[in-house]
Amino acid sequence: MQIIKYPLRSQWAEILTRPVFDTSALNSTVSSVLDDIKERGDQAVFEYEEKFDKVKLLSLAVSAEEIAEAENLVSQELKEAIRQAKENIEIFHRSQIFETKKIETSKGVICWQKAVAIEKVGLYIPGGTAPLFSTVLMLAIPAKIAGCKEIVLCSPPNKEGNIHPAILYAAKEAGVDKVFKAGGIQAIGAMAYGTESIPKVYKIFGPGNQYVMAAKQLVSLRDVAIDMPAGPSEVQVIADETSIPAFVAADLLSQAEHGADSQVILTTTSESFISEVLHEIERQLFELPRREIAQKALENSKLILLKNNREIIDITNEYAPEHLIIETADYADIADEIVNAGSVFLGNYTPESAGDYASGTNHTLPTNGYAKAYSGVNLDSFVKKITFQKITKDGIHNLGKTIEVMAENEQLFAHKNAVTLRLKDKGK
Amino acid sequence: MQIIKYPLRSQWAEILTRPVFDTSALNSTVSSVLDDIKERGDQAVFEYEEKFDKVKLLSLAVSAEEIAEAENLVSQELKEAIRQAKENIEIFHRSQIFETKKIETSKGVICWQKAVAIEKVGLYIPGGTAPLFSTVLMLAIPAKIAGCKEIVLCSPPNKEGNIHPAILYAAKEAGVDKVFKAGGIQAIGAMAYGTESIPKVYKIFGPGNQYVMAAKQLVSLRDVAIDMPAGPSEVQVIADETSIPAFVAADLLSQAEHGADSQVILTTTSESFISEVLHEIERQLFELPRREIAQKALENSKLILLKNNREIIDITNEYAPEHLIIETADYADIADEIVNAGSVFLGNYTPESAGDYASGTNHTLPTNGYAKAYSGVNLDSFVKKITFQKITKDGIHNLGKTIEVMAENEQLFAHKNAVTLRLKDKGK
Repeated sequence: MQIIKYPLRSQWAEILTRPVFDTSALNSTVSSVLDDIKERGDQAVFEYEEKFDKVKLLSLAVSAEEIAEAENLVSQELKEAIRQAKENIEIFHRSQIFETKKIETSKGVICWQKAVAIEKVGLYIPGGTAPLFSTVLMLAIPAKIAGCKEIVLCSPPNKEGNIHPAILYAAKEAGVDKVFKAGGIQAIGAMAYGTESIPKVYKIFGPGNQYVMAAKQLVSLRDVAIDMPAGPSEVQVIADETSIPAFVAADLLSQAEHGADSQVILTTTSESFISEVLHEIERQLFELPRREIAQKALENSKLILLKNNREIIDITNEYAPEHLIIETADYADIADEIVNAGSVFLGNYTPESAGDYASGTNHTLPTNGYAKAYSGVNLDSFVKKITFQKITKDGIHNLGKTIEVMAENEQLFAHKNAVTLRLKDKGK
Repeated sequence: MQIIKYPLRSQWAEILTRPVFDTSALNSTVSSVLDDIKERGDQAVFEYEEKFDKVKLLSLAVSAEEIAEAENLVSQELKEAIRQAKENIEIFHRSQIFETKKIETSKGVICWQKAVAIEKVGLYIPGGTAPLFSTVLMLAIPAKIAGCKEIVLCSPPNKEGNIHPAILYAAKEAGVDKVFKAGGIQAIGAMAYGTESIPKVYKIFGPGNQYVMAAKQLVSLRDVAIDMPAGPSEVQVIADETSIPAFVAADLLSQAEHGADSQVILTTTSESFISEVLHEIERQLFELPRREIAQKALENSKLILLKNNREIIDITNEYAPEHLIIETADYADIADEIVNAGSVFLGNYTPESAGDYASGTNHTLPTNGYAKAYSGVNLDSFVKKITFQKITKDGIHNLGKTIEVMAENEQLFAHKNAVTLRLKDKGK
């Protein structure tokens, strides 16, 4: 781990540089697979599943029997945990339901927004050894609350042609309508263009490897919306001499175990805390099953000693971390000044794991500094806000002159005429 | 104009096809200009201004003197119109300010969202003969209400090196911080990467030609967020036998005059109304200064006769128009079932022009069917919603087991450990 003491502000940008994750080198491969899916539909998906996931599938759709069977394979303990997490995620996302307010901007001119669900959404859940059923909950629950009519989920099957039972169980519990065995570029293409089995959707959500990210970006240029651009996961912890080294070490390690490219940053004004946390990291690392991954990530991680809270706040806003855990005594004061972050965790008893799984907030968050412009996934991500307006005859008389003058000055005379005719009208 | 009577549902998709607007052919030109701006900053902007806008600039920044002079050049009448429009746009967008609600999802687990302005935003305003000062208002006013700290505007100068006074005046009134003379790809590149004169921003808004669109898409892949993908502007009008042919004709023409590629669609259940509106279009077209452009757009426009409101609603939701004007007696019933549209105008006295300029709603809207997944620009477009959470010691005891079980089942043992340590803790 790199320890950086009192860096100059002019050095911050370099210290905070993230590894560039340029997927454009993959674009030609990814494009050709996408084109093929668009052209040949299911047949192409079957072939790429054989090629990339090494499995010969008979059907892309997961059957009702498979889902029923999955339910038997999931432990009672995990079911109970999923139930509690689901309840909290529901409570928090339901609190985000948008209420229409009709606004009379001028007399006789009523304008409002209405939140309407995106009709068809597609969720991508990566495969691999660890089944990301928590991401199923994070995406499907708000989609359901928003009122999306069709919620489609794609996930790559294992070599036996099965999706992990915990994913299928979570999908059923969260209200996913259709689950398909498809991974990688072919899954993204299938949901972007539609195939015989897999419906075309209007927006695609979910994490994935570089191929999935590249495919999402390419289809987002014309065919379908996506949740947000993605990069490696990251955490920043802010600590002081009152923070508990064992907790901070555990929080840093829980980010580090995600992957070798995970970003882990500690910022503090306490030099002695850095030694304490280093000691704790060493101790805890030793006991982790994924210690090799964590160790790799830690090699690039940074423990930054800063002069005061002003510097801590400024460097945080410059970094714009996906996850920010503030474990200082004055966490509330610092939190007030945070303007760039995905999700913020406050105090000694609020680990990132809570938000990753069960507190209720969403864990699909902007990485790679995108928190400067993007929100994490929330209920808004699943709706459009359509504006409506109703103008009375009096109302158009109040506004008419203004519209005519502006249209004329923009040399749009038909725009003007649409008002002039109405102003002249004596009828109705 | 094409009149299409009682098409089968199976024919709808073809009838509603929009012209494909593929900017990918421009990507290599656009990329090389963007790279050059990134590399050489101001110097490159000056050179491209000379090359593309045929103007040798001495400075990119618009001076305080130029802005003061612009104020003298704008008529009192236009100033008054801009003032009224600004007031309504402010009222409507201020009504969209997000209020934080703290939610206790489980006992001791408090979660909330906080809307925080995107610190730096860039607005692009195209040049050309007609000065789009209305778009300045539509983008800068919500940016200001959201609390964006730096609002930068780029617009191409004319051959004398000036930006139209109405644009400068609107920018000043709406609270833009800095205005620069830069157009096209070089403006987008400058705002995406920053140059000596033009600050880097985190999100770029605004319309433009195909080069601007291509540049926005390319920079959005990695460097900066953008408002939304764009295509030609479009309107759909729904009319019945009670609608007023002169009004409907004027509304269709006000879309047609935007550009030869504008999309204009009328859907109705009244065959006689189609003849009446055709007659009116001919009469009004003759008097329009931009009749050649409008005529070209009308060649591709469609008057579609349908069987009933069910068909009208379904075809509308399939088309997902940018603007939808419902001028039928039962407009409210139809509006209730619209799920895909950018902005909806209700009744005989609510022309699109009202929303284009002065009713208060935003006119930056999703074209090209993007209304199926995207909202128009609104206050949300200028903020991120950051999630916060605070868990008490009791709270982590309530959630702890659930997090541990879920983390273990996803094989993330450091995630689990971050909770286990806190559950064991006897201190504080």
